[in-house]
Amino acid sequence: MTTRQSKDLSTLFYETLKDIYYAEKQILRALPKMAKAAHTDELRHAFEEHREQTQGHVDRLDQIFEMIDKPARGKTCDAILGIIEEGKEVIEDFGETDALDPGLLAAAQAVEHYEISRYGTLKAWASELGLNDAVPLLEATLQEEKKTDELLTKIAVRSVNRKAA
Amino acid sequence: MTTRQSKDLSTLFYETLKDIYYAEKQILRALPKMAKAAHTDELRHAFEEHREQTQGHVDRLDQIFEMIDKPARGKTCDAILGIIEEGKEVIEDFGETDALDPGLLAAAQAVEHYEISRYGTLKAWASELGLNDAVPLLEATLQEEKKTDELLTKIAVRSVNRKAA
Repeated sequence: MTTRQSKDLSTLFYETLKDIYYAEKQILRALPKMAKAAHTDELRHAFEEHREQTQGHVDRLDQIFEMIDKPARGKTCDAILGIIEEGKEVIEDFGETDALDPGLLAAAQAVEHYEISRYGTLKAWASELGLNDAVPLLEATLQEEKKTDELLTKIAVRSVNRKAA
Repeated sequence: MTTRQSKDLSTLFYETLKDIYYAEKQILRALPKMAKAAHTDELRHAFEEHREQTQGHVDRLDQIFEMIDKPARGKTCDAILGIIEEGKEVIEDFGETDALDPGLLAAAQAVEHYEISRYGTLKAWASELGLNDAVPLLEATLQEEKKTDELLTKIAVRSVNRKAA
């Protein structure tokens, strides 16, 4: 890879790092509201636990900004704002109904999938750019996002089974 | 499930169907632009092929609207608008560089993951609501979105390997 090419990809890496940094901070603010709104203890606990985890994801991103010697800075991410907005609408429109928790679960899974795509991309680029210390940090967060998505699916299935019982 | 509960979830199902219907139509418009911008034939063909597939996804959604006896209508989906906007920025900022294709791949994978989360949710709800004819249609689209995401990952890995060779 020529220096020019490598510079382009490292710029894109930095821009995408800022995008997910902003997204994680928005998620940190949204999760307590989602936890407060949730009807079942199981879903509330899942959101509370994921908030702790999300703080860890921000800390890892801080470390990566340091590795590439760039300021840790967020950049408005319209995608995550849109996804979180849809979650807010669910609370407003279905807050008093039994569709609230399914709606919150769906919003949270959309958030997880956005993050899974971003961390998968960042990990591949970090590897291509030879940022070998960043790769395991991005991989660790990627695995946690995937596990959270699986947990949310399990909660959704369990809740359906409970209702059917 | 009481009628009240079922009515809530079916409302949420309909709202989410409108959300993904709007999203698919936006994707139909974005893919030709992404194909035109792509630097490699492989990525261009992938986008062109996925556009064909996307038309099929819209047709399946039309069938589901008919099944639930509701008008096929889109509802502004800020999430997909945000994701597509990020793809446009990549074309503007990196159009002349070798980072363009990695950036387009990343944008397309964010789109796929949004759709994977939505179709997974809709399929689960269709099943809960007893919409048994809708389930295989949603499952078929879900599998196609997953395969497209895997194909994009393969293209990304192949392109990295080619450069390294």
